[in-house]
Amino acid sequence: MFQGYSIINGESRKGSGATFHGVDPASGTRLDPAYHCTSLDDLALAAGLAQEASAVYGKLPGRERARFLRHIAAGIESIGAEIVDRAHKETALPEARLKGELARTVNQLRLFATVVEEGSWANARIDPAEPDRKPLPRADIRSLLRPIGPVAVFGSSNFPLAFSVAGGDTASAFAAGNPVIVKAHSAHPGTSELVGQAVSESVRACGLPAGTFALLFGTGAEIGTALVAHPAIKAVGFTGSLSAGKSLMRVAAARPEPIPCFMEMSSANPVFVLPEALRQRGAEIAKGLFGSFTLGVGQFCTKPGLVYLPRNADADAFVALLQTYVGQSSASPMLTQTICRNHHAGIAGRRAHERVKLLAEGAAHASVEGAYATPALFEVSGRALLDDPELALEIFGPSTLIIRYESEEEKLALGRALEGQLTATVHGTGADIAANAPLLAILERKAGRLIANGFPTGVEVCHAMVHGGPYPATSESRMTSVGTQAIYRFVRPVCFQEFPQDALPDELKDENPLGIWRLVNGEFTRAAVPSLAPAGAGKA
Amino acid sequence: MFQGYSIINGESRKGSGATFHGVDPASGTRLDPAYHCTSLDDLALAAGLAQEASAVYGKLPGRERARFLRHIAAGIESIGAEIVDRAHKETALPEARLKGELARTVNQLRLFATVVEEGSWANARIDPAEPDRKPLPRADIRSLLRPIGPVAVFGSSNFPLAFSVAGGDTASAFAAGNPVIVKAHSAHPGTSELVGQAVSESVRACGLPAGTFALLFGTGAEIGTALVAHPAIKAVGFTGSLSAGKSLMRVAAARPEPIPCFMEMSSANPVFVLPEALRQRGAEIAKGLFGSFTLGVGQFCTKPGLVYLPRNADADAFVALLQTYVGQSSASPMLTQTICRNHHAGIAGRRAHERVKLLAEGAAHASVEGAYATPALFEVSGRALLDDPELALEIFGPSTLIIRYESEEEKLALGRALEGQLTATVHGTGADIAANAPLLAILERKAGRLIANGFPTGVEVCHAMVHGGPYPATSESRMTSVGTQAIYRFVRPVCFQEFPQDALPDELKDENPLGIWRLVNGEFTRAAVPSLAPAGAGKA
Repeated sequence: MFQGYSIINGESRKGSGATFHGVDPASGTRLDPAYHCTSLDDLALAAGLAQEASAVYGKLPGRERARFLRHIAAGIESIGAEIVDRAHKETALPEARLKGELARTVNQLRLFATVVEEGSWANARIDPAEPDRKPLPRADIRSLLRPIGPVAVFGSSNFPLAFSVAGGDTASAFAAGNPVIVKAHSAHPGTSELVGQAVSESVRACGLPAGTFALLFGTGAEIGTALVAHPAIKAVGFTGSLSAGKSLMRVAAARPEPIPCFMEMSSANPVFVLPEALRQRGAEIAKGLFGSFTLGVGQFCTKPGLVYLPRNADADAFVALLQTYVGQSSASPMLTQTICRNHHAGIAGRRAHERVKLLAEGAAHASVEGAYATPALFEVSGRALLDDPELALEIFGPSTLIIRYESEEEKLALGRALEGQLTATVHGTGADIAANAPLLAILERKAGRLIANGFPTGVEVCHAMVHGGPYPATSESRMTSVGTQAIYRFVRPVCFQEFPQDALPDELKDENPLGIWRLVNGEFTRAAVPSLAPAGAGKA
Repeated sequence: MFQGYSIINGESRKGSGATFHGVDPASGTRLDPAYHCTSLDDLALAAGLAQEASAVYGKLPGRERARFLRHIAAGIESIGAEIVDRAHKETALPEARLKGELARTVNQLRLFATVVEEGSWANARIDPAEPDRKPLPRADIRSLLRPIGPVAVFGSSNFPLAFSVAGGDTASAFAAGNPVIVKAHSAHPGTSELVGQAVSESVRACGLPAGTFALLFGTGAEIGTALVAHPAIKAVGFTGSLSAGKSLMRVAAARPEPIPCFMEMSSANPVFVLPEALRQRGAEIAKGLFGSFTLGVGQFCTKPGLVYLPRNADADAFVALLQTYVGQSSASPMLTQTICRNHHAGIAGRRAHERVKLLAEGAAHASVEGAYATPALFEVSGRALLDDPELALEIFGPSTLIIRYESEEEKLALGRALEGQLTATVHGTGADIAANAPLLAILERKAGRLIANGFPTGVEVCHAMVHGGPYPATSESRMTSVGTQAIYRFVRPVCFQEFPQDALPDELKDENPLGIWRLVNGEFTRAAVPSLAPAGAGKA
């Protein structure tokens, strides 16, 4: 079942580079087989095949792309037990969580299938000719969204399924009509290979060009850098660290042809607990918050890492409850030793900071050195955070930082001092929220998603979701990496002027054969366009 | 009327830097007054005010933004004669062209007013709560597009009205809800000042924050670079040269917070005249093509600079006609001496190229040294162009290059060798077009707009227009700088989860008070959402 090979041209392909192994983080055990890093020659082969595949796959009707997406979903489900088992071994994430993530992954593929099968997503626009317009006639002008070209996708460490080989980036890039080359995350190579085999089998079963999908392995930055730099690649989807994301952004910008990068990188996810909510529901919120920042050992990009509280007795009680929860907690294995090392370094930095107070910590775990993280709760004054903004940076792992502000002005100043975030949360009654319109206006400019009376972990895959936000949360605040709008990262508009009907894509033909919503003369409609032969066609 | 000052904080503000003058390109005459370059301190003042204004202007309802846009249009019209007179002096463009451009500019402002007043552009999406969903309830999730923040706009040399102070970039940025800081092009400072005064007067008349608009002057790169680098600026709109565009892209990417850049830079706009069309309508196409590449002294970003023809007698006749037209033509003043110098350098390069043949040239003009350009027609073999791709680079000015291909394969190879373009044109009968599906498939991946049986110059401002294309045509192939979709450059999606109704933007309220089209549970509708109080609101 596991070969340890890349998948290129529809075949397993042994890399010529170094090898590496998956590791069970809970025990430190090395997992077989050895995975062979993809060679640069094989990468070039995959990229060339993707470019060729693009011309064919990009022209397929939505219903055929939908069939492909559904085939992948079914293929993943059919080996779901094996995938969950291997992912559990490679990540130490609980099986229940992985089963949920698998369900999310296949639902996501099917949601995109529904969207592209229906077809209105393509933003078809038609401004029919106006031959009698004065002073000049108007030409017939029509446009729609077309695939951008082969997309490089980087598997993430913390979502071995939903943001990896057949995760949201891949699903949306495929849905948009693009071949995908995935660089597997080296923390879960076996999971990646299993899912990659399912995708590859779907490529074959659906009769698509073999270059429609490839899976590459590599440790370090070499393969990822070469992939982003390859001229056949036209866009990048990435979920990972700020440093890796920035490094790949530089590679993309330095290409002879720069390409768009959609990096989801870093977010501290501020939570403001407002006074009335604190008074009425403090205990409930504290419990939910503890669950949220320790969920998945704090390894979510939406983990609430900053909690803003007033300086009053309700807040003291809230903090005391959190201290109890944290004090009763214990250590869990993190995804990788690198993540764990970074977590420990971040925690050590807070411990050493003279203005930060450690309020509580869970029980440690020493059985596997450098692999386990213990929940921790810190506190700092609003003033201290304003003086040292680095304290607000994300620390990936099960800790959070309480910030106590002294005044309304300080609260707003703290809001303004925030960098770009994926989410910002307020807990408040209706009265709290109404009284905090200025804070909400600030948060709206800082984050992609505002949450009232909930917790940021748990990102719904739906039409309205925005999993994005200003830099450094992402490299491109104008997009989302979760939800059906994620498809818009991997397309570009193409306009057809005075084209004869039979040379137009179906989305733009007068009779609207796909029955999609279109913007005709600026009005949404599913009606056909009254036929008026373009000037050029009359001469055909 | 002309002061020579920047406009900052609603006031004329004398810069402390160097001064410069507009110049009449036709006569070389220096035009009064002297224009004072904006100081870096004044730039910082303008940027800070824009940031403040953003919070207010960005929250205005669409109908108020529409009122502002219409007020600007009316203000420009009311001084239309003065604007055209000054623009004519500063650019040597004919008055009829400038009147047309003025009409386009005000129509564009009014079109964006219509779009934001109607409101559906904001892409409101609602996925209502599903409290009973298994295994987990779904939260209420809603999203819409919100303004990105202050936008830096660079006036272009070749459209002193439609792509300058109140041109397409400014109109779309304002429509989206963003303050705008314009760096005027130094080739037409008086025109810029007149239009800037009209915009500034509209800011005042509509009661908007003074920081909603500013106009800066500068020569060289200093002010533009500082503007793009300023932390208050959140996006850039630019139309100009590849070198200036690339330089500003680097500035934007190197910021602590990188920002999106929408640079429209360089396009050679290939035209393929296919065999049957050549036979049936060769003379008509030749006449149109000559008009298109010499229009406005060839100073359009959509000027057809590459014309691909087969090697046959119809093509010979076509070329002979073009030779006649070019031979009978005469010189005209270009917009600036820099543009003219670059044009002459490009022409000299072609003349000196051993595989390029000069087919025809118009009469020269020596009265103002280095200011006039003469139409020129060159020819090269397909093989030579494939061997030296630099020959396909844009030369701004009234020349074009005929490429004669020997075979279908060579034609396709020439298509594949193209860089990113704003436009690609085919002249063909229905049979030609059907027979050239492979060529069209290639061109679709190379250009933002495909034109059948027309000419690329003349860019309609409408809903379906795409004035964009892969790099180096633009910095961001996923967007357009002309037409109503240009608004999407300057917005970002924001998501509201479980928000109480009265804290939601009107676009997202259940009852749909604006009556806009929304995507509710994935379906387009203008209907209200059946009320279902979100979980959090019930506790308010």
